[in-house]
Amino acid sequence: MNRRPVVALTMGDPAGIGPEICARALREAAVLKRCVPVLFGDAEVALRAARLNGRGTKADSWKVFQPKEWERVERIESPAIVDCRAIGAKDFKPGRVSARCGRAAYRYIELAIQSALRGRVAGVVTAPVHKEALHLAGVPYPGHTEIFTALTRSRRSCMMLRSEVITVSMVTTHIGFRDVPEKLSARRVLDVIQLTDEAMRRILGRRPRLGVCGLNPHAGEHGLFGAREEERFVEPAVKRARAKGIDCTGPLVPDAAFTTNQRKRFDAFVTLYHDQGHIPFKMLAFDTGVNITLGLPIVRTSVDHGTAFDIAWKGKADARSLFSAISAAVDLACGRERRAR
Amino acid sequence: MNRRPVVALTMGDPAGIGPEICARALREAAVLKRCVPVLFGDAEVALRAARLNGRGTKADSWKVFQPKEWERVERIESPAIVDCRAIGAKDFKPGRVSARCGRAAYRYIELAIQSALRGRVAGVVTAPVHKEALHLAGVPYPGHTEIFTALTRSRRSCMMLRSEVITVSMVTTHIGFRDVPEKLSARRVLDVIQLTDEAMRRILGRRPRLGVCGLNPHAGEHGLFGAREEERFVEPAVKRARAKGIDCTGPLVPDAAFTTNQRKRFDAFVTLYHDQGHIPFKMLAFDTGVNITLGLPIVRTSVDHGTAFDIAWKGKADARSLFSAISAAVDLACGRERRAR
Repeated sequence: MNRRPVVALTMGDPAGIGPEICARALREAAVLKRCVPVLFGDAEVALRAARLNGRGTKADSWKVFQPKEWERVERIESPAIVDCRAIGAKDFKPGRVSARCGRAAYRYIELAIQSALRGRVAGVVTAPVHKEALHLAGVPYPGHTEIFTALTRSRRSCMMLRSEVITVSMVTTHIGFRDVPEKLSARRVLDVIQLTDEAMRRILGRRPRLGVCGLNPHAGEHGLFGAREEERFVEPAVKRARAKGIDCTGPLVPDAAFTTNQRKRFDAFVTLYHDQGHIPFKMLAFDTGVNITLGLPIVRTSVDHGTAFDIAWKGKADARSLFSAISAAVDLACGRERRAR
Repeated sequence: MNRRPVVALTMGDPAGIGPEICARALREAAVLKRCVPVLFGDAEVALRAARLNGRGTKADSWKVFQPKEWERVERIESPAIVDCRAIGAKDFKPGRVSARCGRAAYRYIELAIQSALRGRVAGVVTAPVHKEALHLAGVPYPGHTEIFTALTRSRRSCMMLRSEVITVSMVTTHIGFRDVPEKLSARRVLDVIQLTDEAMRRILGRRPRLGVCGLNPHAGEHGLFGAREEERFVEPAVKRARAKGIDCTGPLVPDAAFTTNQRKRFDAFVTLYHDQGHIPFKMLAFDTGVNITLGLPIVRTSVDHGTAFDIAWKGKADARSLFSAISAAVDLACGRERRAR
């Protein structure tokens, strides 16, 4: 039997549903079968979250390491916690935004990324952070994708949402609606096409068929709406991608791109802004989708939902998206190992 | 038995699928049961389209009127054509954009609107026009909604897409992506909330529950993305609408607004731009949805698809959306009559 890969989970904002879904993952048979999960968080918080569900807890068997200790561990075969000591179990209120929680969530991510860059974990799977809390904590990034891109010094990266029914990647993500057009360029669209192609080749084991959306209503109808963003950014990127052997088509009329018929034509869609990709994705794959950051030197996947402050710490949270994210990370990591041989 | 209302159909761009789907409607039993359809188009083109389907045509029984003649007709009980003499059957090529077709399509609409304003028809149902052809013809409006708003001198109007599974109305429609933010105002959002509320009250026979979307990713996350369009435009409009007794909620996080659960919570969604409403609508109600212009002094509905130049004049076009649009026009017109009594 192959050795299971070690996968880092980051606990997310302590006031959200992150701690409880991570605690679930650490004792979920389907997770343990595929990997050894190591939680980057606060042990005190995680153990309290583990007690939430009322079921006989296996939390007592989890090994707890200090971060420096973790770096020296030679081999690990059962779930563990890397105790980042960023916040105490009584230092926050469930469902409340705070700078302290934002700071803690960021610390978990930092340490997990360092561990991944050193090759100590095969990938990082993140529980949700709260963007406002990060902001209050003075973290200069709006979300995970941007943090991972910066801390791994990646030249180009993008967000991809993956599920069995629809897959979308995004040219721009966490920026204001009005800021989207100025962030577009043929270079950036091409980067995202290439990143999506690479990831989907790995996931599907064959050349994927990609659809690339336009920006304006009806894809601009030849300059009638907008400032010819389709002709300036999408067309040249599609042309260059095709010249490189990538199977891609576009600009697609955005409102007609995601119908049942079109979804059969394409394995993944390259979308130009957050909601162009997120609206169809969440309609079809709510609670089961996985968020993957492409273009990093490490594997990174995530749940596709938020901190859900309204139900946090009530034992009601659904951990399925986290399980899917862990599974996707193992797929990507093992693919990566296979290819490296 | 009540007398069936007379409903005007406009033939749309002659080079598209409009002529053939209109010809189908004029002999469709389900249509004839509910209304007397009168086609505003070119008789020569319509009769040629009627022969496309190969079935025994009833087109010979259609009465043909010149526009002035039509204005004097006292009573009509069977399908008819108002022959606008805008283009001959050999003056265009199927599937080809042309100024001549754009001009003809516009002429049909003009005459149908005049007829509706004089109360000679209970409503106008439009087959698709081609925006580029209209543009080439020098028509100063990007689409039907704008033409109807201008020619009926309406102070405020908006587009609503209606189906059994999802209903969306739009604060902005046929403008470039980059032009959306500057077109938003609390006044305009409130107008669209009110228009949607009025129409849905009529359709459902009760107070509808409306959801109003934000603009930015995550509805701006309290100013983190965008220029607080949610706080400036959506929040005040929702507040004022509620003060007027309208059941509405917002700003909703756009990417989470259209999931199965949320669709149960709301009877209709007010969306801020074309694709925010059109993407979810076309995913759920492709080919069966109806486009309704709200806020006009006349009833106006339309198919929710385009000219489909790729399959035009091949006898392949699906006329179901047109049948639904006619049915919706009858519903709205009869509701209107009922209310007027």
